[in-house]
This record gives sequence, structure tokens and C-alpha cells, in this order.
Amino acid sequence: MYELYYWPMIQGRGEFVRLALEEAGADYADIARDKNGMEKMLAVMEEGPHPSFAPPFLRHGKKCIGQTATILLYLGDRHNLAPTSETGRLWTQQIQQTLADAVFEAHETHHPVGLGLYYEDQKPEARKRAQEFRKERIPKFLDWFETILTRNPGGTRYLVGKSLTYADLSLFQLVEGLDYAFPKATRRALKKTPKVAALRDAVAKRPRIAAYLASERRIPFNEDGIFRRYPEIDG
Amino acid sequence: MYELYYWPMIQGRGEFVRLALEEAGADYADIARDKNGMEKMLAVMEEGPHPSFAPPFLRHGKKCIGQTATILLYLGDRHNLAPTSETGRLWTQQIQQTLADAVFEAHETHHPVGLGLYYEDQKPEARKRAQEFRKERIPKFLDWFETILTRNPGGTRYLVGKSLTYADLSLFQLVEGLDYAFPKATRRALKKTPKVAALRDAVAKRPRIAAYLASERRIPFNEDGIFRRYPEIDG
Repeated sequence: MYELYYWPMIQGRGEFVRLALEEAGADYADIARDKNGMEKMLAVMEEGPHPSFAPPFLRHGKKCIGQTATILLYLGDRHNLAPTSETGRLWTQQIQQTLADAVFEAHETHHPVGLGLYYEDQKPEARKRAQEFRKERIPKFLDWFETILTRNPGGTRYLVGKSLTYADLSLFQLVEGLDYAFPKATRRALKKTPKVAALRDAVAKRPRIAAYLASERRIPFNEDGIFRRYPEIDG
Repeated sequence: MYELYYWPMIQGRGEFVRLALEEAGADYADIARDKNGMEKMLAVMEEGPHPSFAPPFLRHGKKCIGQTATILLYLGDRHNLAPTSETGRLWTQQIQQTLADAVFEAHETHHPVGLGLYYEDQKPEARKRAQEFRKERIPKFLDWFETILTRNPGGTRYLVGKSLTYADLSLFQLVEGLDYAFPKATRRALKKTPKVAALRDAVAKRPRIAAYLASERRIPFNEDGIFRRYPEIDG
């Protein structure tokens, strides 16, 4: 039984962990979404030898693991969502950390000058940052994913080898988020990255992922999360 | 024999890898700093099944590994710069990924609205972002490191257990960088985080690190790197 701790109102970084747990069919509780869950989360953040700097974090027995990519490193080994070879494990983790960079940059588009300020207080700056993100960064990230799919010796269906890894699930989520926040730029980029588009569609159709996406466990995208739809910065 | 590939004029993210290689006494070549090294680096970035999105990356035999924290995961196992237990390895990696977030935010202070624009073209925005970084984020990150040093069951000398890990080397570099870019804010924060300050001093005195810092292999901080000293944003 896993305990996932993350902000209860958004997909955010927690969603990359949720998707792995769902695909694995793992038994988990999304603690902060329960009654008094936020208090529990904030209490756990203050305790133990391994406190996380920020959610998400995962408790499993005595273990408490934070940072999305580190959590996935742990879950990947346990649920056959990563290769067992050292080279394959590292490559999957390298892809995940690159995904994390893209997620970070997506967040910057609405909070370029102050993480603690409201979006409304940094609209002109957000417009500038989002313009570069749409025109330069979305195509650059998706091109890189297309390249590594193309070069995968195991075929173009998955990012690593011949079976699904947590990186595939995360790429699905990144594309979903980009498509929500910047639909025009993302669809333009996806036309040039058909293998990325196909992977996204294939992940969405996996039985456990499809069931999850249709359930109430999947929080809808919204303007408190990482991927936000603000028409004025979609260009 | 390792081959490190990174931009030759800056410490940047490559420095976290250099410090691990130096402490390990590893045999390595800093390829892009050799004659025609940049051409070599750009060529390697285009080849093989595991191309990195960006430098740094490390070649070792047939392996090619990118993303700073992933490279350190690999080197940590090989050079006794991480614990051998699963929990310890994951915790060290979680710390490193949190460090990477701090490094990312440090970079944002001079490039808040355009990664591809010059600093000179985003000075007012940089001033805003840097103000929050100095006042809120530097203290918050250093406090977290102080907390985990305090709670380390192995003592307060190292971040993890009773011996040096790559995370300690990286924390040294983060503090050095913050102190270079934002000396006033960093020194103020360090007064409240004496264990972090002590760890930084202890790392600087390790024989191999001290020799490295005094050598020409250590590139000085400068205004092309991640940590930049712009007096107008130091507050």
C-alpha cells in the first residue's frame, strides 16, 4: 500500500506519479484528497529523516521518497515500468529528468518573475516567456522525443526498448498538458512529431490508463496547475 | 577513462560532474575544452541511440549518459560517492534533484522571460525575479539543507549517512554559486544555516577538491554561466 502526498486540487507533478501507480494497478491512497488530508500532508512534510522540499512524495512502509523523477525510479523497479539493465534504467531516468525540465519551463510561462506572485500580477512578462516557449521550446522538446523514439533500437512504439516505461506515461502527460495550455502550438509541433503523437494516443488507450482518465481520480486540468490555458498567452 | 562533454567557457551544470570526477580521482577528459572540442561535442550530440537534450553528458565505453543528476547517479555507484542501500541511493538522488531545482531557479534570475534572449534585454524582469529569489528562495533552499543535515541519523557532517556523497559536492557548488551571484543574501542566509556553511568549508578543504579549485581546470565564475554577479539584481 502506497501513500501519495500531493496538492489535492491539481494534477501538477503528482500526476506523473499517479499515472505510474494506475498503470501498475498498485494499491495507493491519494492522502491529501481525503478528509483532513492537507493537514496530514503538511504534518508528514515536517517529520522524519527524509523530509521533501515540496510535494509530491510517496510513503511506502518506512520509506518516504520525494522528487517526481526519484519516485518514478523507485516505482519503475518495483512495477516493471523500467528496464532492469543499468544502461536502460539510467536512460529511462535521463529521459524523465529531461521531461522534468520541460515541465519546469511550462510552469515558468505563467510565473516568470515571481513564483509567489499571482499570474495576474505578471501578465506582460508571462506573454513574453510564453511566446518563446510556444515558438522555440515546445518544438525543441517534442523534436527531441521524436528523435529518441526514432533511434530506439527496440522500435518506435516506446521510448525505451520494447515495453512501456514510466517515461512513456510521463511523455503522455506532458503532451496532454501542453495541448491543454497551448493547443495551437502543440498541435503544430505534433504534426512534425508523429511518433510522439502516436505514443500519446497509445498510452491513452491502455486499459488501466483509459479507466483512470475516465474516473473521478483524474483531476481535470485547471488554472491552478502547471499547465494553464490562458488564451492571451497562447498566441 | 571518462569523456565529459560540456560548454567549455563556464562551470554551469558540468561543474557538478567535474567535482565528482575530481573527488573520485577519476581519469577524465573535458572534451569540449580541447582543440576542436566544441565540434566534437556537437557531433556526439547528434549520434547514437541516447542523444542528450543538452550538455552535460558523459561517455564511458559504449555508454552515453546525460542529465546532471543521472550522471551523478552513475558515478556515485562507481566511485563510492553514494550509499549502497536502496534507501540511501534514492535519498541522495532526491537531494540532487532538489539541488537541480535550485540551480534552475538561479538561472531564471537573469533569464526570466527568454532563455534565448540576452540578459540586457530582460533587466527589469530579472530584477523582479531576483528579488524573490534572494528574499524567499535562497533562505528556503538553504533552510531545507540545514534541516536535512540536522536530521541525518549519521550526523551533521554530511547530507547522507557518515560519508561524503555527490550531493555534498553539489551543495558545495550551489553555495559557491549563490555566494558569487548574490553575496549579501547568501551570507545572510548562511548565518542561519551554520551546518550548510560548515559543509561547504569542509568540502573546499578536501585535498582533491582543494587541488582542483586551485588548478586551471576550475573555470572561474563569470557572466556567461548559471551564477552571475550583476550588482543591480543583488539588492
